[in-house]
Amino acid sequence: MAILFCSSLDPAGRWREALARELPHLETRIYPDIGDPGTIDYALVWAPPPGLLAALPRLKLIASIGAGVDHILADPSVPRHVPIVRLVDPATTRLMSEYVLAQTLRLHRQDLLYEAQQRAGIWQWHEQPDPAERRVGILGLGRLGTDAATRLKANGFDIAGWSRTGKTLDGIACFSGGEGFDALLRRSDILICLLPLTAATENILDRRAFDHLPRGASVVNVARGRHLVDADLLEALDSGQLAYAILDVFREEPLPPDHPFWRHSRIVVTPHVAGAAEVRTAAPIIADAIRRAEAGLPLRDVVDPERGY
Amino acid sequence: MAILFCSSLDPAGRWREALARELPHLETRIYPDIGDPGTIDYALVWAPPPGLLAALPRLKLIASIGAGVDHILADPSVPRHVPIVRLVDPATTRLMSEYVLAQTLRLHRQDLLYEAQQRAGIWQWHEQPDPAERRVGILGLGRLGTDAATRLKANGFDIAGWSRTGKTLDGIACFSGGEGFDALLRRSDILICLLPLTAATENILDRRAFDHLPRGASVVNVARGRHLVDADLLEALDSGQLAYAILDVFREEPLPPDHPFWRHSRIVVTPHVAGAAEVRTAAPIIADAIRRAEAGLPLRDVVDPERGY
Repeated sequence: MAILFCSSLDPAGRWREALARELPHLETRIYPDIGDPGTIDYALVWAPPPGLLAALPRLKLIASIGAGVDHILADPSVPRHVPIVRLVDPATTRLMSEYVLAQTLRLHRQDLLYEAQQRAGIWQWHEQPDPAERRVGILGLGRLGTDAATRLKANGFDIAGWSRTGKTLDGIACFSGGEGFDALLRRSDILICLLPLTAATENILDRRAFDHLPRGASVVNVARGRHLVDADLLEALDSGQLAYAILDVFREEPLPPDHPFWRHSRIVVTPHVAGAAEVRTAAPIIADAIRRAEAGLPLRDVVDPERGY
Repeated sequence: MAILFCSSLDPAGRWREALARELPHLETRIYPDIGDPGTIDYALVWAPPPGLLAALPRLKLIASIGAGVDHILADPSVPRHVPIVRLVDPATTRLMSEYVLAQTLRLHRQDLLYEAQQRAGIWQWHEQPDPAERRVGILGLGRLGTDAATRLKANGFDIAGWSRTGKTLDGIACFSGGEGFDALLRRSDILICLLPLTAATENILDRRAFDHLPRGASVVNVARGRHLVDADLLEALDSGQLAYAILDVFREEPLPPDHPFWRHSRIVVTPHVAGAAEVRTAAPIIADAIRRAEAGLPLRDVVDPERGY
């Protein structure tokens, strides 16, 4: 019995060590050295090559090294009878909310404006609104979105959120559905995307969405690059409809060297660091899912492939 | 009876309007149009010209438009028999703590490193410590320092503070005195200066202090420019002893166009915006001090000129 590890982003050696400590009776094989496909029961993956999972006849569980599973479902050959679990790690959630808070404070305190002034040698004060006057809209009210909303609220911001199905959160205005989406946009000075990537949310950050935001709003994308229509963002920044964009995720990662986002003065690029999974905290959670699968216990955080999250 | 307003930094017109609403029986005169000096009872000032306050024979109260009074005490002719009150405004305190939190998060999340990478087109992830592993040291545990410490603690950082006289704060390691100063420095990955400017604290951020910090520490100065020895900071950054400095205050403000801080790649310059007084919230507090002086009631937040705060 073996675990297959396949990710070009995560540290394979550290994962193998951590899994050996947690599950000493299982061998971890690192892609592409998969050995006999018929002896692999569990797969721990980030963006596996198409066809890989379908070629494992005894596969009992697919675990995502991340909160999203779009990188798994993108492969239509992934066997539908094998349960897929996503990584729900409180440490990753905390990291993500911290990044969102840091970037929201940065936009709120006009850091990017003061940075531009510093580059130009300009000493000029700007009116500073109270955080209660700063309307932040969060797209996605799953575990990440809810945690970020709570953290921002604790720091004084005026928070609203949007999700596909209606939610109720204490002290946070919750919108849902198509009309709710437009209403959320109209009251968001800062828009934060924490949605799962599905057919319904792909390209959701497009010209139409930007046009519904108040003029001079800013956008933070910490979900997936494919939520964003790159050309529409550039146009909205250049027209002044948007002030700034802070982007941690991209259609292609690493972001290609010639991509215009790298050199745009009002775009911040970070290399997918907002809520990266950490081996130390994530390995015990993945190990627990495998133990449950071995024991035939109900799994936690199973994804609905039709819904996409 | 009249109030004299004298500040080159604050909006005189808005202050006059706000004081007229609060104290309709008093006239506000804006420097240099002071009228008859013998009819001025109250002075509301930021860095008044030397000799101005000494030339007001009936002066009963000097109010600082700011938490510090160094800009008043710098004038040796200021009459010692007239009480000086400093501005203690919860809104200013909140603004200051928000700035300190924003900049601490920025250093913690390695924003300045990722910004340098963006400028160079480099996609590279860096290990992200937990905030509980990030040791933040706060110089000054007055109202501003205590509030900032509490806010940073609530956001997960490992906080310690230093003050001239010993303090006790819940969950925060408090140091005092000369040995305590060195001990605080040795455990501060991020050092934040929120001290009053006095003869004892001038030039406190010098080469000796930087040498006691862990290698690669960063410094945030939101107190006064004269706490910092500019040349020592540049040397510590250039040697790698310090990683970054975030500065909101300077020896000369506006920061002169040819000052090397403007163009240093590891110095952030903001134009004294961390905790600027806002007329809306500060005017009622100043008006209350004047009403107390008029009524002969005990004043709040009176400064000890010998101590300097």
